[in-house]
Amino acid sequence: MEQDHLIALLIEATVLKRLPRTGWLLRGVPAAESIADHSFGTAFVVLALADVLNASGMLPAPLDTGQALAIAVLHDLPEARLTDLPGPTKHLIPREVKSQAEVKALEALTAALPSAVRFQALWREFEDESTPEGKLVRDADKLEMMIQCLRYELSGSRGLDDFWASMDRQEWRYPLCADLYARLKGMRP
Amino acid sequence: MEQDHLIALLIEATVLKRLPRTGWLLRGVPAAESIADHSFGTAFVVLALADVLNASGMLPAPLDTGQALAIAVLHDLPEARLTDLPGPTKHLIPREVKSQAEVKALEALTAALPSAVRFQALWREFEDESTPEGKLVRDADKLEMMIQCLRYELSGSRGLDDFWASMDRQEWRYPLCADLYARLKGMRP
Amino acid sequence: MEQDHLIALLIEATVLKRLPRTGWLLRGVPAAESIADHSFGTAFVVLALADVLNASGMLPAPLDTGQALAIAVLHDLPEARLTDLPGPTKHLIPREVKSQAEVKALEALTAALPSAVRFQALWREFEDESTPEGKLVRDADKLEMMIQCLRYELSGSRGLDDFWASMDRQEWRYPLCADLYARLKGMRP
Amino acid sequence: MEQDHLIALLIEATVLKRLPRTGWLLRGVPAAESIADHSFGTAFVVLALADVLNASGMLPAPLDTGQALAIAVLHDLPEARLTDLPGPTKHLIPREVKSQAEVKALEALTAALPSAVRFQALWREFEDESTPEGKLVRDADKLEMMIQCLRYELSGSRGLDDFWASMDRQEWRYPLCADLYARLKGMRP
Amino acid sequence: MEQDHLIALLIEATVLKRLPRTGWLLRGVPAAESIADHSFGTAFVVLALADVLNASGMLPAPLDTGQALAIAVLHDLPEARLTDLPGPTKHLIPREVKSQAEVKALEALTAALPSAVRFQALWREFEDESTPEGKLVRDADKLEMMIQCLRYELSGSRGLDDFWASMDRQEWRYPLCADLYARLKGMRP
Amino acid sequence: MEQDHLIALLIEATVLKRLPRTGWLLRGVPAAESIADHSFGTAFVVLALADVLNASGMLPAPLDTGQALAIAVLHDLPEARLTDLPGPTKHLIPREVKSQAEVKALEALTAALPSAVRFQALWREFEDESTPEGKLVRDADKLEMMIQCLRYELSGSRGLDDFWASMDRQEWRYPLCADLYARLKGMRP
Repeated sequence: MEQDHLIALLIEATVLKRLPRTGWLLRGVPAAESIADHSFGTAFVVLALADVLNASGMLPAPLDTGQALAIAVLHDLPEARLTDLPGPTKHLIPREVKSQAEVKALEALTAALPSAVRFQALWREFEDESTPEGKLVRDADKLEMMIQCLRYELSGSRGLDDFWASMDRQEWRYPLCADLYARLKGMRP
Repeated sequence: MEQDHLIALLIEATVLKRLPRTGWLLRGVPAAESIADHSFGTAFVVLALADVLNASGMLPAPLDTGQALAIAVLHDLPEARLTDLPGPTKHLIPREVKSQAEVKALEALTAALPSAVRFQALWREFEDESTPEGKLVRDADKLEMMIQCLRYELSGSRGLDDFWASMDRQEWRYPLCADLYARLKGMRP
Repeated sequence: MEQDHLIALLIEATVLKRLPRTGWLLRGVPAAESIADHSFGTAFVVLALADVLNASGMLPAPLDTGQALAIAVLHDLPEARLTDLPGPTKHLIPREVKSQAEVKALEALTAALPSAVRFQALWREFEDESTPEGKLVRDADKLEMMIQCLRYELSGSRGLDDFWASMDRQEWRYPLCADLYARLKGMRP
Repeated sequence: MEQDHLIALLIEATVLKRLPRTGWLLRGVPAAESIADHSFGTAFVVLALADVLNASGMLPAPLDTGQALAIAVLHDLPEARLTDLPGPTKHLIPREVKSQAEVKALEALTAALPSAVRFQALWREFEDESTPEGKLVRDADKLEMMIQCLRYELSGSRGLDDFWASMDRQEWRYPLCADLYARLKGMRP
Repeated sequence: MEQDHLIALLIEATVLKRLPRTGWLLRGVPAAESIADHSFGTAFVVLALADVLNASGMLPAPLDTGQALAIAVLHDLPEARLTDLPGPTKHLIPREVKSQAEVKALEALTAALPSAVRFQALWREFEDESTPEGKLVRDADKLEMMIQCLRYELSGSRGLDDFWASMDRQEWRYPLCADLYARLKGMRP
Repeated sequence: MEQDHLIALLIEATVLKRLPRTGWLLRGVPAAESIADHSFGTAFVVLALADVLNASGMLPAPLDTGQALAIAVLHDLPEARLTDLPGPTKHLIPREVKSQAEVKALEALTAALPSAVRFQALWREFEDESTPEGKLVRDADKLEMMIQCLRYELSGSRGLDDFWASMDRQEWRYPLCADLYARLKGMRP
């Protein structure tokens, strides 16, 4: 029955509150955030940045904030089945295999929803950075990680240098994000 | 400077990941979710329910999912300064005082954003249930709490009966939510 | 029935073991102490300081240690219903509203005890610093917080400067406490 | 220097907030209380029970509540050095050895306090149940443990039957405590 | 330099103490064990079972306990890089991909050790169940999981039925393990 | 019945996953490892070091790695009943009393195993450092503690200097361990 699938999905999504972000665990952060914590953070960053960007008058066309929020809410949903595979697994599991696994997980999770196909397309915008909104969530996803990283450092965490080093090699899609990242970096203790 | 205020806001919002939902603490749930966990959950429920409702063809007009998502992301933001005041405080702090405190917190937090006023209006839609989207987030906020409540019970938590009892006295704004709640209740161990 | 109220109170007070001190959470301390932890610490500081002060021969009259201990044990009891409202809430909830809420919570909690009225008066001595014993618990409450703050810093926590800054503006009721505070500050890493 | 010893003691006592009560760990309670949590709980039970007992008019002489509170605050202080040795160690470490270790720890911890000798005598009242106040703390110590035990059970913890079984073999010093214990037991889920 | 690689390995292996066993997280177990906890448990079960099996006189040849212990210590080492991929990922990441990822992780981790090749062969005995010792660790790995599962259930955890259901479909390599499993099952609350 | 004793032992050993290493707690490490975490770490260090030592060609006779692993797995087993008595207890509980308590705990725990006597002899090799394998586990036990200590420091923990200071007074049984320790020390932040 339709509603039972819907409930099963809503219950399963709560697991994102329990699954830790493994990147922090690998560095010994003592009370690592959950994937849901990060997903909320990303959605919040998206809301704030879309607002600033749209008000700046410098975009060719305004961003669809609602669409960007939907992408943010969905962007880590596959991890409810896959868990958060940390950076080093890149050298162990081929990128296409991981990407296919995420697609399969997303399809299975959202199967009961009327807009399942559209949700998968939204997630694809994030994965492929194929739309301005997808690009924004990409930037917000990274920026949120570094905001949290700085937050941990301000509280005394150490050994997170390689997060900054790898982010330095990152190209930002929006100059605003590059600017905010530079400021974050300037606040490191 | 504008950007510095923006960064200060983004950093402060991470505190929602660290603040627990106090209702669970009062009942002795051992690893209570964070406010950010719940906010993510609410946004996810909103995304799923808006989709089902819009597809149902039974609404007078389709819900603006993006607007509902924005409300969901903002609905507990004041708690970054106020923390999560649990149910029993209702008898101790007058409702208007709490509501004013939330408004003040929200204003202070969002001051640097171009759409600060609109964000405060969105939050007000939730608080006053003055729009279909505000009503949806209200229902989603409650439903998400009960999904998590059931999740805790399925894992062995006990002593959460009064959550269900007080929810039984709740009127749902959308029949779909009433239906989902009834199903959740039927799944209690 | 009387005894049942007594038991209800004793059970409810255990919630202070589960509720965190929110000031630490806001700064990202990873394993924040409970309110009960702090209440025990305050009672212990009171016991030690009353002893030193009474032995010093410099007080006009000896402190009633037992009375001071009772105040220390009671001083955060209202938080069993109100939770620990952190510093920033001062700007959001008027001081009288909070104080009244605490009084109401205390009255409700202690209603079943024969000395309810006296316990409320003891708590008032703390709140109003109206007796030497009330003043001592005030100082002990602050000092205990800074002992814990230093303890966190010695273990690697950072970002707690504003605790020291705001304490620097504090006037101590007993010169001994001012002296101990200065020594604590000298031990910061 | 005297004050430095005092500060060292106050800092060391904070370790009681970090050390868990091992009895709960052995049974798999997921978020076991600290020794400081329990010490606060015991002091609170003492305050409430002394009040009820003194008001009952059934004692030959009123209890000295302040003295009983001091005993409660001190009763587990040796564990700051010894940690909480759980029940099974009774069969492994002779009772006199443990008792002597506690005395030595207490002496070392309190050495800098003017009333060190009196504090050791107070602790002895608890250990030997040699005064009405010492007996009261004994009862409160046990009762508090069972209040917490019930609290864990009400929240879903299981496997704590042997706490009740061993408490059934306990003789209570005050009929009030026997009565409260019986009521607690009647509230088990 | 050789020694530096050795130290890097020893430091990296400590991450197994921080990484949780994800199967428990998915079911909401509040304080899930670490991978290192489980690896220790497996080694301990191996030591006990090898002893009982060798004493039984029913094996064609005695088990090499030391070899089995080495396998147990190594069996989850690849998870220091891969993390613990839970059951549902079986449907998302092809078994060969996962197995190759584990081999690659093990090779990278052990590269500095003189017996790297032998250690990889030992791990292969476990993976392929190609020796009596590899078979024993397989059985011990499963049995240890169910011992912990029962332990969680005895403490109040619920919702772990599917662990037992999937284990019921498991064939045990040693009748002793089948027998112990049946007894464990009989002890469920 | 034999098997029931075996199962009781296997279940009881899981408590080592829940019991924290108290040395870290005393210094305020926020998420202290379990005894099982450390036991796994020790076994892993033993496996790696035995390999390097045996390959070095500098030992009079090769180490029996399997025997050393068995000792490592057993070396903290008595703590399942005694818990981890931290350093300061040395001044409170006579060494022989503690040692006898450990022997008694080990005997009681292993009573059901055919090789109980041999296991007790293995543990004695560790306690008395009476064999090359016992000496190796002693060194590995210390080294593993310092690897973890460094790991905590690299993540931001402070206040662990006395671990290094007391280790500086330690004589290592194997030059390799002295060398590794010196390198670890050189990596301190």
